[in-house]
Amino acid sequence: MRVAAVGEDGTLHSRARAETPKGALGSNVVDLIVQLAEDCRAELTNRSDVLAVAAAVPAIIDAETGVLIKLPNLRCLEGVNLRDELSRRLGVEAFLENDATAAAIGENWLGASRGLDDSICVTLGTGVGGGLIINGLPFRGKDGTAGEVGHICVEPEGVQCGCGGRGCLEQYASATAVTRMAREDGLMFDTAIDVCDAAAAGNDIASGVFRRMGSCLGIGLAGLINVLNPEMIVIGGGVAAAWDHFIDIVRKEVMTRSFREPAERVKIVRAELGDDAGILGAARSALSR
Amino acid sequence: MRVAAVGEDGTLHSRARAETPKGALGSNVVDLIVQLAEDCRAELTNRSDVLAVAAAVPAIIDAETGVLIKLPNLRCLEGVNLRDELSRRLGVEAFLENDATAAAIGENWLGASRGLDDSICVTLGTGVGGGLIINGLPFRGKDGTAGEVGHICVEPEGVQCGCGGRGCLEQYASATAVTRMAREDGLMFDTAIDVCDAAAAGNDIASGVFRRMGSCLGIGLAGLINVLNPEMIVIGGGVAAAWDHFIDIVRKEVMTRSFREPAERVKIVRAELGDDAGILGAARSALSR
Repeated sequence: MRVAAVGEDGTLHSRARAETPKGALGSNVVDLIVQLAEDCRAELTNRSDVLAVAAAVPAIIDAETGVLIKLPNLRCLEGVNLRDELSRRLGVEAFLENDATAAAIGENWLGASRGLDDSICVTLGTGVGGGLIINGLPFRGKDGTAGEVGHICVEPEGVQCGCGGRGCLEQYASATAVTRMAREDGLMFDTAIDVCDAAAAGNDIASGVFRRMGSCLGIGLAGLINVLNPEMIVIGGGVAAAWDHFIDIVRKEVMTRSFREPAERVKIVRAELGDDAGILGAARSALSR
Repeated sequence: MRVAAVGEDGTLHSRARAETPKGALGSNVVDLIVQLAEDCRAELTNRSDVLAVAAAVPAIIDAETGVLIKLPNLRCLEGVNLRDELSRRLGVEAFLENDATAAAIGENWLGASRGLDDSICVTLGTGVGGGLIINGLPFRGKDGTAGEVGHICVEPEGVQCGCGGRGCLEQYASATAVTRMAREDGLMFDTAIDVCDAAAAGNDIASGVFRRMGSCLGIGLAGLINVLNPEMIVIGGGVAAAWDHFIDIVRKEVMTRSFREPAERVKIVRAELGDDAGILGAARSALSR
């Protein structure tokens, strides 16, 4: 859990972080967020410089009420009105943004896709998230769920997904999926980073895992490119570290499966802001509101 | 090829139509469009009432120049500056719109999705086309190619598609695909309507074709729903006539494969404007510009 004091120009003036407590109550998690935010504020010369608090949350957000609806990876916050809680306890206006949408906003503000009208940010982490920038603005959809590119089907009869579907992109391109596919092929690693290291060291099985991952990612992105004709797709998250092991296959699938004009238009690039994309995007989202 | 004189409220004041000439030169096709438009104008009480001409074309359009770039089904018009030609020869300002986008605009103006902010129009015809309405406006993408939902992959190793990809939705949900799948299963019909009639008459093989078609369509739409969280998906084109034979399976795939909130949000309905959707949408597009 990371908090920062962000200036209007995107400067990070102070930072604080802590492990998300496992098995905690929602109120404990909120307490911790508030504590980290207070720590950040305390480091500023003038604590009244803080205009607002903005949170990037791995959740579906009820935009009207500020209630968090669905957090598969942080269930204890389901039903919590994080917007009201943060505003009340920190004494400033509060804003919420979905974490993947926040990352897309951050990259569009100060990162790889800065200034572009139409871009998609794909985060290859524990799961596969996504955020859309359309006509220069974040596109959230009526329920705030737009951008779930991790649940595009790339294998109709494929691996069962936690979402209820089968063969979702997330089952082939997330860190979890990379580790699972490596194990299926006999490489008993604990993390996607291990698989990446093995591929870098010339292990053919590990390389094969990333070829399969890249093929699935390319199939998913090719569909997005045909539907949205974006100028850029920005890829971030931990698995992006394996870039050289999958990007050629991603591009090959896109060139094969997408129409020529949008395939030639789209730049597929690595995210530039790392873990700060979400923090910066949430701040930008609050500033623009 | 259909032409109509459209009022600002969407009233169709006069109509003309002709078969698209096979194997004609581009100039012959343009001559025919101009002739049909003149016929429509001649029927009006006052020919100076015509403010502009708008064309819905099965093409990628260079929005800046007005040149038609890619018309797989009408190659003779490739490279033609239809906007300048129509404007010059009819003596009014001319506007071009991709046919699938025009249908989406038409349905959003006076049809099934009227007044909604976020909708997708899918046309199941010879191919599978699509048009997007986002935040109440047509979304065309930087190259004007956005909305190509027919080229979302629903079967990675599936049937080779004319676009260069494999297993595109178009290969399972177009009229061409329905006829092909029926033939593969031993039903030697010439048209998708024949297959539909057979299904209606209780033919199990024909019903099976539409179940497969519905499953593929549902897989493609489920991804769109996860990515765009639309309020409505409008389905038109000739194959929509087989609605009762595929819609239950489409909905089942969507409920299984899409996130709950957007799956419950989206209404999947039949188009209301039939063949007029494109004409009305092109007119609306011109009026709004």
